[in-house]
Amino acid sequence: MEFWFTEKPTPNWGMTYRVQQVLRRRQTAYQDLAVVETVEFGRALILDGIVQLTEKDEFVYHEMIVHVPMCAHPDPRRVLVVGGGDGGAVREILRHPAVEEICLVDIDGEVIEAAREFFPRVSSGLDDPRVHIVIEDASRYLWRDEVQGRYDVILVDSPDPVGPAIALFQEDFYRAVYRALAPDGLFSAQSECPFLMPDFIRSVQESAARVFPIVKLYIYSNVTYPGGMWAFTTGSKRYDPACPQEGRRPAGPTRYWTPEVHRAAFVLPPFVQELAPRQHALPGTCAGTVDRV
Amino acid sequence: MEFWFTEKPTPNWGMTYRVQQVLRRRQTAYQDLAVVETVEFGRALILDGIVQLTEKDEFVYHEMIVHVPMCAHPDPRRVLVVGGGDGGAVREILRHPAVEEICLVDIDGEVIEAAREFFPRVSSGLDDPRVHIVIEDASRYLWRDEVQGRYDVILVDSPDPVGPAIALFQEDFYRAVYRALAPDGLFSAQSECPFLMPDFIRSVQESAARVFPIVKLYIYSNVTYPGGMWAFTTGSKRYDPACPQEGRRPAGPTRYWTPEVHRAAFVLPPFVQELAPRQHALPGTCAGTVDRV
Repeated sequence: MEFWFTEKPTPNWGMTYRVQQVLRRRQTAYQDLAVVETVEFGRALILDGIVQLTEKDEFVYHEMIVHVPMCAHPDPRRVLVVGGGDGGAVREILRHPAVEEICLVDIDGEVIEAAREFFPRVSSGLDDPRVHIVIEDASRYLWRDEVQGRYDVILVDSPDPVGPAIALFQEDFYRAVYRALAPDGLFSAQSECPFLMPDFIRSVQESAARVFPIVKLYIYSNVTYPGGMWAFTTGSKRYDPACPQEGRRPAGPTRYWTPEVHRAAFVLPPFVQELAPRQHALPGTCAGTVDRV
Repeated sequence: MEFWFTEKPTPNWGMTYRVQQVLRRRQTAYQDLAVVETVEFGRALILDGIVQLTEKDEFVYHEMIVHVPMCAHPDPRRVLVVGGGDGGAVREILRHPAVEEICLVDIDGEVIEAAREFFPRVSSGLDDPRVHIVIEDASRYLWRDEVQGRYDVILVDSPDPVGPAIALFQEDFYRAVYRALAPDGLFSAQSECPFLMPDFIRSVQESAARVFPIVKLYIYSNVTYPGGMWAFTTGSKRYDPACPQEGRRPAGPTRYWTPEVHRAAFVLPPFVQELAPRQHALPGTCAGTVDRV
């Protein structure tokens, strides 16, 4: 007997996984949470029927959402993670030893519990004394008085724009992110697949561009997010997100991010350039080359 | 009632497509050939249960297998396509107006027939007077006397390494490719997914490197090849495949390839660098930058 789980990004297309075991299945206050053991990719965290991470390829997403903004900033000390209850982004942020404070704001504490229990290698950083966990709607948290101008880097590590996450892709939210960033801060945000959701990406870029002076898009590939190519939106008050600062890199080896991959991720095919029209209007300030490949 | 077709790259994972209509289904002399109308991605060509192309995203693969080697060579006149019976590679090669001769060698004439009938926008170049079609096993064709040193560029536009295509990934085949190339020729070859088939890619790189002085790997993303990131192996007698020659580009607009995307495609994440160890040993000769993004 075989069990299969199928994720359908559209009603007419899906990715299907053979499942060895369902380790947890709960309707939380916010979403349908499942942890399953897949045969092919190890354990998977699934929210509302959409795979959020698998042990096989979570390194790609987490390295790219974290090290791009963290290395484009010369000295980030305070970092906010919106969503990201699995802890993968926190783990990567902690590879930047100068970081003094990480605040993780997730609306659903049960995601964090599940990550602690079933994904120890992903959630390993959550007990670090520099990490503060807040269970709250991030759109509210960001308007608190004490967070104004507080963060050097903000990561919007959100699920797809359905359910409670819809608010995290709108102009009001980017205004709140802008407000919570220091005068030279920048953010990166999960932004879906250019092949499958081009109109959505264009509108996110436009919303962010109404708030931030520098807005760019960068891309990466992973296995289990359907569509092949996925994107992050990044907005910055001062630094060019496409340019890693000289000498900035996380401690220890990386499997996806390098300074060269960082720069190359901002080189967009024309069908993606169309979704990020401001990327070309901005003068490039990045003197890096891709000679060494 | 719904019809679904599921491709399983492994026994434990698949991509599943809702199908409106099966337009052709035949056991040819070599493979199980199907043309289906999918709801999500337009028409798809399927060989032995594996999607070869869909109307939605075939542009990515065809632009990247063709324009990278064609633009790394300063003046390609004679081009050989191994496989590629759908005609997509030929269509892209014809965007280089100086080309004088294109030879397409496919083992299975029924693929070409199906492409002419069901994929007119893909196969549109097959009737160009510069195109010669040969129905033959390419491993034999390449050892013919008259092709020795004949081609400036060879494209190995093959299906996955199962069935008759297995031979197209082995050292003997690269020797035949080397023999058929001019003294400054180069080739590109479809080389699977780095996430899913790392050992295979490493062995292809090693086989090619026993024959060619310059061997590199480059990557791209598409929707319908499972695994997100896909790779091409390229081998060259003289020019650096990573470097588009000054001013070389196809006529008309592209949707994926640009000179900047060309260079960026050779920038490999560390987990892929491991599969192409010689890429780093070679001195970079490419002075291009990725400033303009």
